[in-house]
Amino acid sequence: MEKYIFEQKFKVRDYECDIQGVLNNAVYQNYLEHTRHEFLASKNISFADLHLKGIDPMVARISIDYKTPLRPGDCCICRLYVQKEGIKYVFFQDIYRLGDEKIAIKARVDAVVVVNGKLGFCDELDELVNDTKIVK
Amino acid sequence: MEKYIFEQKFKVRDYECDIQGVLNNAVYQNYLEHTRHEFLASKNISFADLHLKGIDPMVARISIDYKTPLRPGDCCICRLYVQKEGIKYVFFQDIYRLGDEKIAIKARVDAVVVVNGKLGFCDELDELVNDTKIVK
Amino acid sequence: MEKYIFEQKFKVRDYECDIQGVLNNAVYQNYLEHTRHEFLASKNISFADLHLKGIDPMVARISIDYKTPLRPGDCCICRLYVQKEGIKYVFFQDIYRLGDEKIAIKARVDAVVVVNGKLGFCDELDELVNDTKIVK
Amino acid sequence: MEKYIFEQKFKVRDYECDIQGVLNNAVYQNYLEHTRHEFLASKNISFADLHLKGIDPMVARISIDYKTPLRPGDCCICRLYVQKEGIKYVFFQDIYRLGDEKIAIKARVDAVVVVNGKLGFCDELDELVNDTKIVK
Repeated sequence: MEKYIFEQKFKVRDYECDIQGVLNNAVYQNYLEHTRHEFLASKNISFADLHLKGIDPMVARISIDYKTPLRPGDCCICRLYVQKEGIKYVFFQDIYRLGDEKIAIKARVDAVVVVNGKLGFCDELDELVNDTKIVK
Repeated sequence: MEKYIFEQKFKVRDYECDIQGVLNNAVYQNYLEHTRHEFLASKNISFADLHLKGIDPMVARISIDYKTPLRPGDCCICRLYVQKEGIKYVFFQDIYRLGDEKIAIKARVDAVVVVNGKLGFCDELDELVNDTKIVK
Repeated sequence: MEKYIFEQKFKVRDYECDIQGVLNNAVYQNYLEHTRHEFLASKNISFADLHLKGIDPMVARISIDYKTPLRPGDCCICRLYVQKEGIKYVFFQDIYRLGDEKIAIKARVDAVVVVNGKLGFCDELDELVNDTKIVK
Repeated sequence: MEKYIFEQKFKVRDYECDIQGVLNNAVYQNYLEHTRHEFLASKNISFADLHLKGIDPMVARISIDYKTPLRPGDCCICRLYVQKEGIKYVFFQDIYRLGDEKIAIKARVDAVVVVNGKLGFCDELDELVNDTKIVK
């Protein structure tokens, strides 16, 4: 049983699909990023503002299992939870197709924080990890 | 020592960079895909034509280690080699920054072939795996 | 007074913004396309299905006036109406920033229909033009 | 006879093509932007550096005539020349398919310069307009 704490809906747009007629693989990564940033925004943390303060969360590693291709017009929902492992923030993010709840992708994203060019910490992010309100 | 058999150059374009001033993480996946397709093209295999014949190579899993962010104006080269593991074609693809040969990302892409909607085989791809001319 | 008959909301995503910190100019065209396709979908016309039937609406000309740059986190709404001029379907599409209703872009998109490779007609689209329910 | 002063080659990438099997309309705008930035770079002007100095060239208006759709694997070349009209820098940019030199798009891009948030001037850009070496 997954312990998701945030979710973000998407509708697949035709321009995001490629000549195979399915959502291009790279676009899922866009969805994952937008979901993380909306998660931060839901906690009043602006990714753009962090950058202006010299704080840059960076993806250090990503792995994605592609299960079911999404197609033009499909709606989907990206759900996430996050854990801290050493200096890393590990986001577990899964995308489900709306309607039949079929899993589209399962992803794990390891992020680190770069502060003024060096690996560092971010108190705002640390507080997020302790937030355990499960949405589903 | 890596046994690369194909390489493809890229110049980072400004529109591919995001508000952090670096190449957006998802764009690396575009580079990886284009390199694989150019590799196929170098063997006279057209990804678009395969699709028209009902043969669709699909990414089943991808993992990327992000090492050094690329920036506007950077040039880079994506090198690859490929191995067959069961029904999977496993592409090892690394992107290096030109100039200092610093590693930007290391990626592993597991692909399968879907023929008319079912997992299948593709003779043209099988021949590629046996090609071992090492470019670097 | 504009006679809009359809509108589609968007939230600017960070990955759509470029190193100037604003929504990249090309992304507005993505928004315009998605709005037209959602307009068709609202009339039970699937752009993907049209293509499978050999009917391809194509943009012949586009002009966009950029008025106010959108930024990370901005929400906006794209409103449209459409007129027929000879064989062309002319979409007038304007994007407004939500909150202050400031105009972001004004666009005109001239589309034609290609049927099996030749300029042609599309009854479904002709019916749309006669639909004059104004939403704002 | 066009008086082009710069040109930039592109190879259409599969991920840039959409479900119609052609280069997505918005991607041409990416090509146009990259060509302008490479033109600046050829004169030792970095778009990214200009931004850091508070100088932001912005597109005020764009119009594109779509003539021939480009397809996966096509190569093309974007040629440009530029004129000054009042405070505007007007770029005329045309993309030709390589091989048969068929025109793909004809575009006109009106740019202005924003300096620290206000319409302004940019000496480096003014010098470009006086450069009239015709490449084709």
